[in-house]
Amino acid sequence: MTAPAEASTAREGAQTVRVELGERSYDILVGRGLIASAGDEIARLLSGGRVAVITDDNVAKAQLPALKASLDAAGIGHVTFAVKPGEPSKRFSTFEQLCDQVLEARLERGDAIVALGGGVVGDLAGFVAASVRRGMRFIQMPTSLLAQVDSSVGGKTGINSRHGKNLIGAFYQPGLVIADTAALDTLSPREFRAGYAEVAKYGLIDDADFFAWLEANHREIFAGGAARDEAVAASCRAKARVVADDEFEAGNRALLNLGHTFGHALESAVDYDGARLVHGEGVAIGMRLAHAFSARLGLCPQEDVARVEAHLKTVGLPTHMKDIPGQLPPAATLLDIIAQDKKVTRGALTFILTRGIGRSFVEKGVDPQEVLSFLTEELVEQI
Amino acid sequence: MTAPAEASTAREGAQTVRVELGERSYDILVGRGLIASAGDEIARLLSGGRVAVITDDNVAKAQLPALKASLDAAGIGHVTFAVKPGEPSKRFSTFEQLCDQVLEARLERGDAIVALGGGVVGDLAGFVAASVRRGMRFIQMPTSLLAQVDSSVGGKTGINSRHGKNLIGAFYQPGLVIADTAALDTLSPREFRAGYAEVAKYGLIDDADFFAWLEANHREIFAGGAARDEAVAASCRAKARVVADDEFEAGNRALLNLGHTFGHALESAVDYDGARLVHGEGVAIGMRLAHAFSARLGLCPQEDVARVEAHLKTVGLPTHMKDIPGQLPPAATLLDIIAQDKKVTRGALTFILTRGIGRSFVEKGVDPQEVLSFLTEELVEQI
Repeated sequence: MTAPAEASTAREGAQTVRVELGERSYDILVGRGLIASAGDEIARLLSGGRVAVITDDNVAKAQLPALKASLDAAGIGHVTFAVKPGEPSKRFSTFEQLCDQVLEARLERGDAIVALGGGVVGDLAGFVAASVRRGMRFIQMPTSLLAQVDSSVGGKTGINSRHGKNLIGAFYQPGLVIADTAALDTLSPREFRAGYAEVAKYGLIDDADFFAWLEANHREIFAGGAARDEAVAASCRAKARVVADDEFEAGNRALLNLGHTFGHALESAVDYDGARLVHGEGVAIGMRLAHAFSARLGLCPQEDVARVEAHLKTVGLPTHMKDIPGQLPPAATLLDIIAQDKKVTRGALTFILTRGIGRSFVEKGVDPQEVLSFLTEELVEQI
Repeated sequence: MTAPAEASTAREGAQTVRVELGERSYDILVGRGLIASAGDEIARLLSGGRVAVITDDNVAKAQLPALKASLDAAGIGHVTFAVKPGEPSKRFSTFEQLCDQVLEARLERGDAIVALGGGVVGDLAGFVAASVRRGMRFIQMPTSLLAQVDSSVGGKTGINSRHGKNLIGAFYQPGLVIADTAALDTLSPREFRAGYAEVAKYGLIDDADFFAWLEANHREIFAGGAARDEAVAASCRAKARVVADDEFEAGNRALLNLGHTFGHALESAVDYDGARLVHGEGVAIGMRLAHAFSARLGLCPQEDVARVEAHLKTVGLPTHMKDIPGQLPPAATLLDIIAQDKKVTRGALTFILTRGIGRSFVEKGVDPQEVLSFLTEELVEQI
């Protein structure tokens, strides 16, 4: 739990992915053991400031001692605020409390918020960083696979409203992302798999070679070898490319939602009950559904649907609605949830469809009746 | 209260001030009667969307019927949410409630929040617009002089925390500002004067000619003639120039805080009791203090201090701490309040000082002891 002797040589062996956003450009560092040497990287960014580490109680136990030691060694003053683990912390009252705590600690604009944790912590801490004093410095230290390959990159921050997830927030880019892949050793297999769904997504969006590489290398990625670091870095590069092209989600950034429209609807249908379905599992099912729906529309070859399903199954991810334990609502209800989703633009249904592995595209004119028929068939199939 | 027949020729007779911020550039329209023709301008911006009008109960009575009629005439769907008038509405619970109401009304990213009101409404509605769905379209329709010449321009939005004013918020630019100078006819003389302090500020910052013009034309500005429109437009141009130069307040935008460090401290010292001191009055006293303090440091000629004081007095604004009814805390307490102010950077005191009328500058290395001695003298003077 203390900083290793080689802490000061942090970037050696780490991969650096640059997110090109003009004045808001930043680096993502990917490698094993980076938390223990984070102080030096943060010191380089801050030149004298202090940090507030926002984390959750579980991550605090596993990772906070190493981070604190590293901040101390770098001479960076710090305070820590730990929230309860889990999605319910992404709410107004927690947001308000954290803002007040950061102000109470008298942190200034040039000081930084450090998000140490998974997606919940990153989204919440990022919105705090965006909002306190109208924007403080912000550093992401994602500790889950999902956060390392997805939520920590790209600047989406936010909290949930009673009307849905992530409906209140800001586009706010971090100044630095430090992804310590050793932190993933402590994840449960289920949580690791859920993050892996987003890794596979980058191949399915526009990189068939990467998907094929994943088919060949998934064992080493799950075991924690060099392929894991490579998969995380490649995912960050893929996301960085999309984000650089469309920071505020006006166009092609929507491709990142491949599998998410169906996935979100399923998460909502089970009331975000993580015992039944976690986000990455919803995405896995959603990606299979997006390919199957595209095949039904005559866009995607059936063999690609089969290949997607086979790979997701191989790593242990669910691919069909019937894989979700318990009852699901009828197709019409699922369609209504989809229509309420924030990706809807003025009544028309927008989906990410695909012409095959690595050939996804944004389709804004999807007929709701087609979706209803498709979902009905998929649900019937499972009885 | 209904739209006049000439509504469709809105921009005729109105002045347009462009705020140059690259992709985030926008127009400010200044003129009499613009609310009644706002629908056409908004329709041009939205191309089919809906709007949520956020206002307060007082402004709703005076201005909402004309705006609604104009939106109806332009075929723009609208909902209205009115908060209680006054600073206490700039709090978390109101922010949360408004976000929920906007989502409840199913407004989408391409729809707009319209802020119809003074600074409180604009700051609050702007933060809602910045945060719901991570950013909706935003239109400012300022109805107070303070809002027309200051708070509606430049993208600062936010709410108050128990640690101070405007400490939680976002830099979020509107897509359009519509300043109807006829709305100012209903302001109380005290409220108009308070807004005028910010008008005078633009002269004092860097435009001695404008200050001289105000000395010559203040009667017509208060009476509501063409000089009023000109004063509002000139103030918007001045602010637009500063904001374009430094959108995120990294440098010279701080010049807009001329008079505000002292002013905020006085507002805080009276617990934001508007019966004793409103913001613009604090700024007026603060501007006289900034000139007097600069003179004490040998930077500003005494005759300029006298000229500033004379003009502010002529229009009925307070200029000395003794003009505030009731007891003030001792100088040491005022200094402590100043040191807590968000414009403080790492312990050093930052003030806007001046070498004379129209010659202000940012000074980051002000000695707290000098401030303490100065405030002590100023307070003694008043016993």
